[in-house]
Amino acid sequence: MKNLNIMFYFLFVCFFVISCNQNNEKKVKYDQTVGQTINTFYGDALEFKESYNLLRVLSKDIGQRLSGSEGAKKAVLWTKKIMEDYGFDSVYLQPVMVPHWERDKTRQEAYFLNSNGQKISLSILAAGGSVSTPKEGLVANVVEVKSLEEVDQLGEGGVKGNVVFYNKAFNPRFINQGNSYGSTGFQRRSGAIKAAEYGAVASVFRSLSSSDDDVPHTGSMSYKDAVDSIPHAGLGVVSAKKLSAELKIDKNLKLFLNFGGKWYPDALSHNVIGEIKGSEFPDEIITVGGHLDSWDVGEGAHDDGAGCVHSIGALRLFQKQNIKPKRTLRAVMFMNEENGLKGGQEYALQAVELKENHIAAIESDASAYVPRGFGFSGSDEQLEKLRGWLQYFDKNTISYFSKGGGGADIGPLHRSLGTPMFGLNIDGQKYFEMHHTEKDVFELINERELELGTASLASLIFLIDKYGL
Amino acid sequence: MKNLNIMFYFLFVCFFVISCNQNNEKKVKYDQTVGQTINTFYGDALEFKESYNLLRVLSKDIGQRLSGSEGAKKAVLWTKKIMEDYGFDSVYLQPVMVPHWERDKTRQEAYFLNSNGQKISLSILAAGGSVSTPKEGLVANVVEVKSLEEVDQLGEGGVKGNVVFYNKAFNPRFINQGNSYGSTGFQRRSGAIKAAEYGAVASVFRSLSSSDDDVPHTGSMSYKDAVDSIPHAGLGVVSAKKLSAELKIDKNLKLFLNFGGKWYPDALSHNVIGEIKGSEFPDEIITVGGHLDSWDVGEGAHDDGAGCVHSIGALRLFQKQNIKPKRTLRAVMFMNEENGLKGGQEYALQAVELKENHIAAIESDASAYVPRGFGFSGSDEQLEKLRGWLQYFDKNTISYFSKGGGGADIGPLHRSLGTPMFGLNIDGQKYFEMHHTEKDVFELINERELELGTASLASLIFLIDKYGL
Repeated sequence: MKNLNIMFYFLFVCFFVISCNQNNEKKVKYDQTVGQTINTFYGDALEFKESYNLLRVLSKDIGQRLSGSEGAKKAVLWTKKIMEDYGFDSVYLQPVMVPHWERDKTRQEAYFLNSNGQKISLSILAAGGSVSTPKEGLVANVVEVKSLEEVDQLGEGGVKGNVVFYNKAFNPRFINQGNSYGSTGFQRRSGAIKAAEYGAVASVFRSLSSSDDDVPHTGSMSYKDAVDSIPHAGLGVVSAKKLSAELKIDKNLKLFLNFGGKWYPDALSHNVIGEIKGSEFPDEIITVGGHLDSWDVGEGAHDDGAGCVHSIGALRLFQKQNIKPKRTLRAVMFMNEENGLKGGQEYALQAVELKENHIAAIESDASAYVPRGFGFSGSDEQLEKLRGWLQYFDKNTISYFSKGGGGADIGPLHRSLGTPMFGLNIDGQKYFEMHHTEKDVFELINERELELGTASLASLIFLIDKYGL
Repeated sequence: MKNLNIMFYFLFVCFFVISCNQNNEKKVKYDQTVGQTINTFYGDALEFKESYNLLRVLSKDIGQRLSGSEGAKKAVLWTKKIMEDYGFDSVYLQPVMVPHWERDKTRQEAYFLNSNGQKISLSILAAGGSVSTPKEGLVANVVEVKSLEEVDQLGEGGVKGNVVFYNKAFNPRFINQGNSYGSTGFQRRSGAIKAAEYGAVASVFRSLSSSDDDVPHTGSMSYKDAVDSIPHAGLGVVSAKKLSAELKIDKNLKLFLNFGGKWYPDALSHNVIGEIKGSEFPDEIITVGGHLDSWDVGEGAHDDGAGCVHSIGALRLFQKQNIKPKRTLRAVMFMNEENGLKGGQEYALQAVELKENHIAAIESDASAYVPRGFGFSGSDEQLEKLRGWLQYFDKNTISYFSKGGGGADIGPLHRSLGTPMFGLNIDGQKYFEMHHTEKDVFELINERELELGTASLASLIFLIDKYGL
């Protein structure tokens, strides 16, 4: 009995100690020096605005940089030179073959004749990768749908010879605009395939936009080998509403479409990589990156010039404080996120072939608006550890680490090597007002919001470098 | 020995139970119904945009509404009518005497002659409450300082007969722009008193602004009975830099100032109060408010039209879901926050006289940008409870409850009755680009960001009403 008591006693001591430890782990002791370093990252970013100044050049002087374009080539050379000028320990290009499509900017016309015989012009922009309409354009009847299933239901009888018009709008009720993008994205990505399966001559879709304006949106789309490739384009939201309203009056209205795009052979391009070598564990790599390619409208300032200058800027902030990281830090400008992901795939492939040891990868591809947190794909134990670091962040910068997240470009690395990955979460309320449109220009960038992103990345990298994951 | 063992055993059981309980309290069980209600608040706000539509009228049709002005009168009647039309249970005006100052908008001139004899115009705006320069303006030498202490050091010898020019800039390194506002605000608030103590003929100050533009800023200032009232005005940031640069070349440059403002007798005005009566505890009051008065430049869209429509809109969201609160909910449009706080003081006074039972007060006076959290002034136990409610908020809306905070208008209530108070914390990176300037107009409002504020307030009120504090 006495022994039993002692056993119980022992058990409870164990429980208690475990319980206390759990509490202690959640409240990791605040390290003043770490706090000062991180505070200085933010101060330096906000004062010197180097990311902002880089983004001005990338947006205004280089501008559009779709994979395979002259702009993309310039961006590769320019970011390489920037990192060399900064004196990073190693700056190099990683070759990658990328798809090369070009829009015919001389042909962007759409209209219908309304019941009064008036010609109603529509604002239109070919999806990235679309084939052209005939040179003289095409004229056809229109069937309006809100889902791929509706096309199936219409079948060949309803679709053949017509233009399929996908008109599913963003749902304003979603707090997270990404949910709207997710639930309407099929129109742009898969709309042409589904329409062509039933013999449509072309397809158009309401721009994947939260705006109520008439600026059309572009982005990647797919064709399928067994199915005809038909022209596929986005309509401005106002244009989509106009067309839909008229279809309610006149189901037989004729839509005229004339737009063009052309595929060229794959082009040689590059990921651009800049490194600060680790002083203790140079073989342990922390990657931070954005994608250098953009769409061929606007300037790719938010998408994803911001992520590129966030990443270069984060390493730059280490230099500013003369911090020698223990691990190797890599800023990677990925090529071809928008229409192929060849850069991200090549980066993972090389990491596997070279047997690199990647301990963390971080992506910024969510704009230059104000940062809110990090999404994380790794173990629950790591997530718990990360949450202990929240005390180092001002509550109005990084206020959470949430489960799940990362990015398209670091996804292949995560899947190949199991590298834990982070995505910088940025306030996304305004993102889909300008995403993939001509409105994505430098003038929409707020310097302080952008720089908070840079400092948030530097801080996370510093913490991973110092404490491991 | 056996008894001792049992005692230890008992003690450890106690410890363990306490420890478990603490963990349980932190993780309050998620109530699906509450989650749905809150989700619907956000959905309704974002879909119906009623706050946004109200703010359009308040900003564009009513516009400026400095205490005592015609605009303020119109705003009182209009907000009363809106809440009546919404069918709130009780809508009434609470009389309050307010200061009445008017700017002479025909006189806003400042310039100096540079060393080449060129006339360099400066962008200027009288501080709210300033007396006028002589009608023909005044001309004087300038002494530049960055603190009140420097004026003391200069003394009468350095200051008498001159214009004191306060030129302390925002510190870009601060993450929280409010810290910059806090550390530069003395220039506007106390600058005239200190300058006049040593015989200055006027004082000017660099606008309390994070912008690098030349739009001057206004705001409240003070005089002291025993000291002369001298004219006091803000210079645009670019103008302040120009003046400072020229003073480095020519200490004897002459500054010309001509601006005006006039005090009138105190005016009768009103707080506007709308209530939804509590079904179980009608005597327990939850106040949510913003201030209805604004400065006399711009439209007071962010400051604080947003807080007013946030507050009306929050109660409106209860109506939309047909929720009958247990406690009485009050939306209060406070009058005269900007230059007197008479509305907030009167509200507290009446609460004391009427022996009202205020269980919580919430203020929104931090703009219409995207919400980030709530500041809270109450007990640590209450704060712990509040943090248990974070699970009901999308992480990109309200991500924290932090210690400290509230608002100027509910401060008197908090101090008189000990009412726990909350301030809606909003992302403030861009706030001081336009605060108290002609740039604070409706066009700067993003409908989604504004509506997230409304829904955040409704959600907090709902949780307080349901669970108490």
